[in-house]
Amino acid sequence: MANRGFCLWLTGLPSAGKTTIARELAPLLRERGWNVELLDGDEIRQGLSSDLGFGRKARETHAARVTYVAKVLARNDVIPIVALISPYASSRARARQDIGRFVEIYISTPLDVCEQRDVKGLYKKARAGEIKEMTGVNDPYEPPTTPEIRVDTVRLAPRDSARYILKELDRLGWPTHR
Amino acid sequence: MANRGFCLWLTGLPSAGKTTIARELAPLLRERGWNVELLDGDEIRQGLSSDLGFGRKARETHAARVTYVAKVLARNDVIPIVALISPYASSRARARQDIGRFVEIYISTPLDVCEQRDVKGLYKKARAGEIKEMTGVNDPYEPPTTPEIRVDTVRLAPRDSARYILKELDRLGWPTHR
Repeated sequence: MANRGFCLWLTGLPSAGKTTIARELAPLLRERGWNVELLDGDEIRQGLSSDLGFGRKARETHAARVTYVAKVLARNDVIPIVALISPYASSRARARQDIGRFVEIYISTPLDVCEQRDVKGLYKKARAGEIKEMTGVNDPYEPPTTPEIRVDTVRLAPRDSARYILKELDRLGWPTHR
Repeated sequence: MANRGFCLWLTGLPSAGKTTIARELAPLLRERGWNVELLDGDEIRQGLSSDLGFGRKARETHAARVTYVAKVLARNDVIPIVALISPYASSRARARQDIGRFVEIYISTPLDVCEQRDVKGLYKKARAGEIKEMTGVNDPYEPPTTPEIRVDTVRLAPRDSARYILKELDRLGWPTHR
């Protein structure tokens, strides 16, 4: 069972850096012998949830589908890295319970920094009233209270954030080498 | 690339024997070193498609989601075995194209035999008018014209069907040993 997969679940506000850090983290784990699948919230919507919007129920359904895929991967010796806003604590708790081998990683970038970055221009649109249900602006984000790992992207660049996660996984006893 | 996964896609009428054969086949491939995930149409509906019915569009959407999961597994060195009626040739063609490493296996049990077996009692209900959109009764099934493998369950018991599939995979050059 030493090479059983486990799920790395990155949660945080839009533009917090989830996808960027996941992309830095994936090759580091591949170098250590793992198969890694990046489950990016935006990309996976196309494959699984093109029918869904961004209301609470839709987000929960989407998170449940991502959870299903991550679970199936993890039990087949793959490390799924989920990069998903996943604003509701209940969705993340369900993912933890369903998947079992689960590491919650909070990309804790503050709202004002995310809004300055605004990678996809969504904050601007939300402030202008062009988008509803924008997490952090007019839709809630429930920060994790006890994540296994918390990443401060104000202090750490993406590559350093990925290295920090790897170090923390080692410290917590997860097998980062396969 | 010798241990890259590939998808075994079992199509056929309800009660043709898809799931039963898939359950016989999975341990044979595991013995040979593979990680194998059984993607059963009924089970996966709960995880991914509880919102969907059984009309043409819903079946196509469901098949597309199963395809996505199978693709992600196969590219991470897992063999997904899909057991799904998948009545439309277009859905199966899309799965083939998306997944790439794809083996279409037609469980060719004739309708009258499936209806005699009627594992879930669905044919009876459909004949009584209690179920609409029952494949083979009042919903179409488009048989594969050129499947890689065709299984005759009238002649072969489930275990022998699984062994036959394995033999055919070997003959076709798929790596059944990892």
